[in-house]
Amino acid sequence: MGKQAKTAITPTREENFSEWYQQVVKASDMAERSPVRGCMVIKPWGYALWENIMAGMDGMFKRTGVKNAYFPLFIPLSFLEKEAEHVEGFAKECAVVTHHRLEKGSEGNLVPSGKLAEPLVVRPTSETIIGHSFSNWVSSYRDLPLLINQWANVVRWEMRTRIFLRTSEFLWQEGHTAHASETEAVERTKMMLDVYADFSEQYLAMPVIKGRKSSSERFPGAVDTLCIEAMMQDRKALQAGTSHFLGQNFSKASGIKFQTAEETEEYAWTTSWGASTRMIGGVIMTHGDDDGVIMPPRVSPAHVVLLPIVRKPEDRSKVMEFTEALSAALRDIRYHENYIGVEIDDRDIGGARGWDWIKKGIPVRVEIGPRDIAEDSVFMGRRDKAYKEKTSLKRDAFLNSITLILDEIQNNIYNKAMEFRDSNTVEITDKDRFYSYFTPEDPENPEIHGGFAVSRWCGNEACESSVKEDLSVTIRCLPFDAVGESGKCICCGSDAANTAIFSKAY
Amino acid sequence: MGKQAKTAITPTREENFSEWYQQVVKASDMAERSPVRGCMVIKPWGYALWENIMAGMDGMFKRTGVKNAYFPLFIPLSFLEKEAEHVEGFAKECAVVTHHRLEKGSEGNLVPSGKLAEPLVVRPTSETIIGHSFSNWVSSYRDLPLLINQWANVVRWEMRTRIFLRTSEFLWQEGHTAHASETEAVERTKMMLDVYADFSEQYLAMPVIKGRKSSSERFPGAVDTLCIEAMMQDRKALQAGTSHFLGQNFSKASGIKFQTAEETEEYAWTTSWGASTRMIGGVIMTHGDDDGVIMPPRVSPAHVVLLPIVRKPEDRSKVMEFTEALSAALRDIRYHENYIGVEIDDRDIGGARGWDWIKKGIPVRVEIGPRDIAEDSVFMGRRDKAYKEKTSLKRDAFLNSITLILDEIQNNIYNKAMEFRDSNTVEITDKDRFYSYFTPEDPENPEIHGGFAVSRWCGNEACESSVKEDLSVTIRCLPFDAVGESGKCICCGSDAANTAIFSKAY
Repeated sequence: MGKQAKTAITPTREENFSEWYQQVVKASDMAERSPVRGCMVIKPWGYALWENIMAGMDGMFKRTGVKNAYFPLFIPLSFLEKEAEHVEGFAKECAVVTHHRLEKGSEGNLVPSGKLAEPLVVRPTSETIIGHSFSNWVSSYRDLPLLINQWANVVRWEMRTRIFLRTSEFLWQEGHTAHASETEAVERTKMMLDVYADFSEQYLAMPVIKGRKSSSERFPGAVDTLCIEAMMQDRKALQAGTSHFLGQNFSKASGIKFQTAEETEEYAWTTSWGASTRMIGGVIMTHGDDDGVIMPPRVSPAHVVLLPIVRKPEDRSKVMEFTEALSAALRDIRYHENYIGVEIDDRDIGGARGWDWIKKGIPVRVEIGPRDIAEDSVFMGRRDKAYKEKTSLKRDAFLNSITLILDEIQNNIYNKAMEFRDSNTVEITDKDRFYSYFTPEDPENPEIHGGFAVSRWCGNEACESSVKEDLSVTIRCLPFDAVGESGKCICCGSDAANTAIFSKAY
Repeated sequence: MGKQAKTAITPTREENFSEWYQQVVKASDMAERSPVRGCMVIKPWGYALWENIMAGMDGMFKRTGVKNAYFPLFIPLSFLEKEAEHVEGFAKECAVVTHHRLEKGSEGNLVPSGKLAEPLVVRPTSETIIGHSFSNWVSSYRDLPLLINQWANVVRWEMRTRIFLRTSEFLWQEGHTAHASETEAVERTKMMLDVYADFSEQYLAMPVIKGRKSSSERFPGAVDTLCIEAMMQDRKALQAGTSHFLGQNFSKASGIKFQTAEETEEYAWTTSWGASTRMIGGVIMTHGDDDGVIMPPRVSPAHVVLLPIVRKPEDRSKVMEFTEALSAALRDIRYHENYIGVEIDDRDIGGARGWDWIKKGIPVRVEIGPRDIAEDSVFMGRRDKAYKEKTSLKRDAFLNSITLILDEIQNNIYNKAMEFRDSNTVEITDKDRFYSYFTPEDPENPEIHGGFAVSRWCGNEACESSVKEDLSVTIRCLPFDAVGESGKCICCGSDAANTAIFSKAY
C-alpha cells in the first residue's frame, strides 16, 4: 500500500463529504457559526464572494428592466394569512416579534415589554408585504409590468442548519413582478430562470439543469415553480435558484387589480424568483477538492496572490518593490466587468502561507524571490492544477496572459463539473436498478450513492412519496430538455408521461 | 400684490417645511410609508440613490483597508446586557423576537408558539454581536487591526417617525474596528469621520461641520462620539454620520483580548461608525426647492432624461431613432466612477412629463423634437436653473459638455448650500440674543427660527439641559475648527472652555 497523499483538508471528500464541507468552510475562512441559533457570520473572504455574486446577478437583472427597491423586514401576521397555502408553508419556521421594549423584570433582569397588538413575522419571503405595495402602485394596465427586486435578509427558523446551505437567517434577492397578461408573467418566470442558469454556468462555472418542480415541491402559493438544480461532488442535488409563476393567487390575496385597455377590471399576474447565499455552498461543493475551495475566477474575491520571498533581510526592499509594481500593473488589467483583484501576503510564516491561499481557492499564486526578479520572471501556481505544477514566466508574458489564464481556469472547472455530472447521471427504467442505485455502497458512509437518475414518473404523488420514504430520494425537477419518449413509471410501472430527475438533495 | 408663482410642491418650504418634505418624498416617488408601523418602503428612485450612496462610501471604506462582512440580525438579550450604558440606551426601542413558530389558536387564528428560552433582539446596532466574533478572531497583536464593515438593516422602535429621517427599520452601514493601541483607534475614529465628511461634501454636495458630541449626546457605551452636522433649509441641524471611539468598554464586555509583542495580555481598543438612509433625507432637505428634489449629479439615480416630442405620428420613428442614438452615446461617456445614466420618457402625458422629472430632481432634461433634429440640436433644461431657462445646444456640443455641466450643477448646489449655512450661522455671546435667535418669528410656523449659533459653553450638563428645555435647542457638536478664544458660557455666564454649535435638530 502506498503512503496516503497528504491533503490540506481532513477528512477528504471521499472519507466524509459533509465533514469535509465544514472543514473547507473553516479552512477558507469564509464563514462560521454564530452564537445565535442557526445563524452564520459571513467573514470577509466569504462576503467578498457574495458581493461579486450580487454584482453579477444585479447587472443581469437590470438588463432585463428590473429595478431594485426595499420593503419592510416585518410582516403583519394578518398579511401572511391572506394566502392560505403560503402561510401554511411558512408557519412552522417563523421568527415572531411580539414586544417592542425591554424592561427590568422582578428579578432585576431585562424582560420583553410593550406587547404588540398584532405580532409581526420577520419576513421568510416577501410576497405578501410587496403585494400590498403593488396593490397601491397598480391601477391601470399602463402601470404594468412592475419589475422589482430586493436584496435582503430573510429568516426561516430551520431545525437542522448547515452554513450557507440552510441557515435560519440568510441573504438573498427576491424578485417580484406583476403583469397584465398570463403569457407575459409566464415568460418572465422562464426569463428569470434563464438568468439564474446563465449566471450559474457563466459566473459560478456550475452546470445546472433547468426544469419544473412537481406539485409537492412547489413554492407555497405558486401555480408553477421552476428551478435550477446542480450536482454536488457527493452526487446530491442542490437547488440553486427558483422562479415561481404565481398566477393570480397573490394578486387576489393582496388586491393587485388594474383597469385593462378595454376598461374592464382584472387581477394582475405575478411572479417571484429568488437566489441566495446558498449559491456559495454550491460553489464550494461543485469545485472544491481535498485541499479546499476552488474559486471560479469570474466571482473570486481576488484573482492573484503575490507571495514575496525574502530569505535575507537585504533582499526585502527589492522584492517588495517588484511585488508592489506587479500588483499595480495587474490591478490595471480589466477582467470582464472588473479589474484583476490582487492580494499581497508578506507574512513570515513559511509554507503555511501558500497553503492558506490554496485553501481559500484563489485562482493564481505567484511567488517572487530575488532569483525571479533577476530574471524578470514570476513563479506561478494555478488552483486548477496540482500544487507542484508551477511555471516560471517572464513578467510581461504573465501580465499579457493573466486574463487568458483566468478564463482557462474558469473553463476547466466548468468542464470538470460537467463531466462529473454527466458521468453520475444515469437513465434508469428498472425499479430494482433504481433502488440499488440509491443505496449507499458503504453503509458507514451513507452520503455516497448513485447520483442523478433520469426516470419516468406517472405524475402520481403516491409514487413520489414512496420513493422519498424508501430512499430519501426526491424528484428534483421535470427537466425542460427531456426527450419525450413514452415509458413506465419507475415506481408503479404504469404509463408515465413525465421524465424526472430523481436524486438525494440538500 | 403680485400673483404668487406656481410651484410643483404644495405647501412651499416657507409655508410649512415639514409638510413640504413629506410632499417632496411623495412627488419624487422615492419612498412611502408602509402598513408596518414606522417602517418605510423605499421605491426604485429612492433606492437607486441609496445604491449610489452605498457604492461611493463602500469604495472610500475599502481604500482605507476596510473589508465587508455580515453578522446575525438577532442579538441574544444576554449579549446586549454586557455593556450597561449600551443596553440602557437601546432597551426602550427594541423589537423582541420571543417565538419561532405560528400555530392555530383556540379561535382558529394563528398565534405565536415555540417560545424561545432566551428572547432575541432585532439588532439596533451590532457592537455586542460583532464584539463576540472579534473576541474569537483576535488572540495576538498580529491579528490587529481588524477593520470590518457591514451593510445591513437595523431596527429601533421609534415612536415618532418620518421617512428617511427616523424610521423603525432603516438601512445603514456600521463599521467596527479593533486595534492594539489607543492612539491607533482614536486615529481610525477620526479617519472615518473624515470619510463621512468627504463623502457628504463631494458626493452629496452637502457641507458639514465636523466635531465632537457633548457627553449627553454620546453613543451609549462610547468614550467619545464624533459627528458631522449639516444644515437643512429650515435651518435645523441633521446629524449625517457618527464615528465612535469606544475605548476598551466593548472589548472588556465582549472579551476582545490579545497578546502584545511583549507577551502581556491586553484588551483591544475599538471603534464603530455608521451612516444610514437618513442621508437621503439630508439630500432632500439640503438641496430641494419648491418644485421638488434636486439630485446631486454624483449620486443621482440617472443624470439625463430624454423627452422625445412627437406631435405628429409620422415624426415618431425619426424622433425615437435620434433619441435612442443620443441615449447610447451618453451612456458611453464616463462620469467619475460610473457612466452617464439616461432615462427615456416617451409617455404621452403632455407637460406633466417634464414636471415629473423636475420633481424627481434629475440634473438634466433634454427635449427632442423634429425641429431640434433638423438642426442636429437638443433643447436642454437644468435642475439648478429656473424651469424656463432652457438652452438649445448642438448635439455634439451637448455630448462634449455633459460631464462639465453635471460637475457645474454639483458645484452650484454645493455652493448654494454652503452660502445658506454661512448666512444662517451666527456667533452669539449674549444670552438674550441667543434666546431671541431661537424663538420662531412666526408662532404659527415654529419650524422657522434662527439657524446655527456658535456660542461658548462651560461644559456643565445643567446649562446644556436648561437650553434644551427652554428652546428645544441642543449642542450639535463642539466643532474641531473652533477658534480657541476664551469666553463666557451662553447659559450660566461662567468661564467657558468650549465653543459649541447650538441648533434645533432632526
